[in-house]
Amino acid sequence: MRKLGLIAGNGKFPLIFAEQAKLEGVSLVAVAHRGETPKAIEKVVDAVTWVYVGELGKIIRTFHQAGVKEAVMAGGIQKVKLFSNFRPDLRGAAFLARMKSREDDQLLRGVAGELEGEGIRVLESTLFLSQIMPPKGVLTRRSPTPEQWEDIRIGFETAKEVGRLGVGQTVVVKNRVVLAIEAVEGTDAAIRRGGVLGKKGFVVVKVSKPQQDLRFDVPAVGVDTIRILSELKGAVLAIEAGKTILLEKEELLGEADRKRIVVAAVSF
Amino acid sequence: MRKLGLIAGNGKFPLIFAEQAKLEGVSLVAVAHRGETPKAIEKVVDAVTWVYVGELGKIIRTFHQAGVKEAVMAGGIQKVKLFSNFRPDLRGAAFLARMKSREDDQLLRGVAGELEGEGIRVLESTLFLSQIMPPKGVLTRRSPTPEQWEDIRIGFETAKEVGRLGVGQTVVVKNRVVLAIEAVEGTDAAIRRGGVLGKKGFVVVKVSKPQQDLRFDVPAVGVDTIRILSELKGAVLAIEAGKTILLEKEELLGEADRKRIVVAAVSF
Repeated sequence: MRKLGLIAGNGKFPLIFAEQAKLEGVSLVAVAHRGETPKAIEKVVDAVTWVYVGELGKIIRTFHQAGVKEAVMAGGIQKVKLFSNFRPDLRGAAFLARMKSREDDQLLRGVAGELEGEGIRVLESTLFLSQIMPPKGVLTRRSPTPEQWEDIRIGFETAKEVGRLGVGQTVVVKNRVVLAIEAVEGTDAAIRRGGVLGKKGFVVVKVSKPQQDLRFDVPAVGVDTIRILSELKGAVLAIEAGKTILLEKEELLGEADRKRIVVAAVSF
Repeated sequence: MRKLGLIAGNGKFPLIFAEQAKLEGVSLVAVAHRGETPKAIEKVVDAVTWVYVGELGKIIRTFHQAGVKEAVMAGGIQKVKLFSNFRPDLRGAAFLARMKSREDDQLLRGVAGELEGEGIRVLESTLFLSQIMPPKGVLTRRSPTPEQWEDIRIGFETAKEVGRLGVGQTVVVKNRVVLAIEAVEGTDAAIRRGGVLGKKGFVVVKVSKPQQDLRFDVPAVGVDTIRILSELKGAVLAIEAGKTILLEKEELLGEADRKRIVVAAVSF
């Protein structure tokens, strides 16, 4: 039986990864982050160890003790927590002192480097998830209007630039005006802000960074994203084809169809 | 006596422009925007006509009737208003239908073009304001720490990129993490969001766009900006040297010194 380490971050991504891995017959040894990872992770993995954000030494010890040689990182860690919920152990503190950048990707690449130095290879988190990374195409019964296509294109270009800076990947657009750009507040908060400013009919675009490493924190949307659009009367959710994950895909698209929201996987 | 048209937008910039113009002995014929321009404009100009956002024909008629051949645009128009408070007259509607882009600069450049087609030259809004566009240097008693300089540099680079996209010009940074990027919500809202996420000690950077046209909506900060930083315990306000305006300069710097906030004019 293949054994994998799972470094679980926040959101539903670690849960969905674990469910897919189980279907593939993989045994999962998870390390879950307090204040980030949903408690439900305990039901879908074979073993779980809870750590504080920053306890790098504890993660490595856990994997060594379980004989883990390959691991996956699934779900993000809210950077905001660096200012509040962060309790590094010795190894974590030493790592952070060495890191020049606090950019998400650099930190994750650094953590992956530490693990690989310990003989634990970090694999792409999309390993078992190709079927929920939709290729280019409209996924709902409704399609975008020509005006909405133009807003999608503007949002896509803006989100790619902001992603290139390593800041955020979500943008809200209406009538060719960029209403909100995500930074640390998170996708939901950025959508709410843009939605309130733009009133009904806005377009949300979420993309992966141009330099996205598929081992780390691949952008994902779930049914909650559709619920926020529905609540604020948003019109379109566009994600990047082949590089963003549709969590709870059937439920998400069903809800979108019921609420007459367009979901499209795009690339330009 | 030199006569100038003043197309007044929101905030204190039109008031300060008018006061400076008066000191220079200029007669001002103002067009003020309902829901945007402060009522106080009426006390500092020679004549004022109130218009709704979008009444381009009325602006042109007002200037023609007053014999205005040169005009200045001072203060922004909240783009959000395009979705709520916008009441174009025939000329405004025809203009908007012709404009492909809804980017701030493109719209303003378009409006300037319409005025120039009517024999009204649009001058730089910084005309009488060189003394409140500080050159490079620290303006307060306190100076940034080396860590704050690094946050200023990161904020400057990010804000320039976002400005290049024509979206916003303000960024909040702490510990090398970009916490908030301004889009349509405005500088104050972006600072509040970043400040709440980052807790005390954050850095605010406001720059002009790389392609900034000094005729339109030059970035400005005033004493209210310092009050928001003070309330949320922000540490530094950095503006771009020579390209952003310090409104109420003496009061602003006095308040910053009292609250131990650094104000610096920077460029990289």
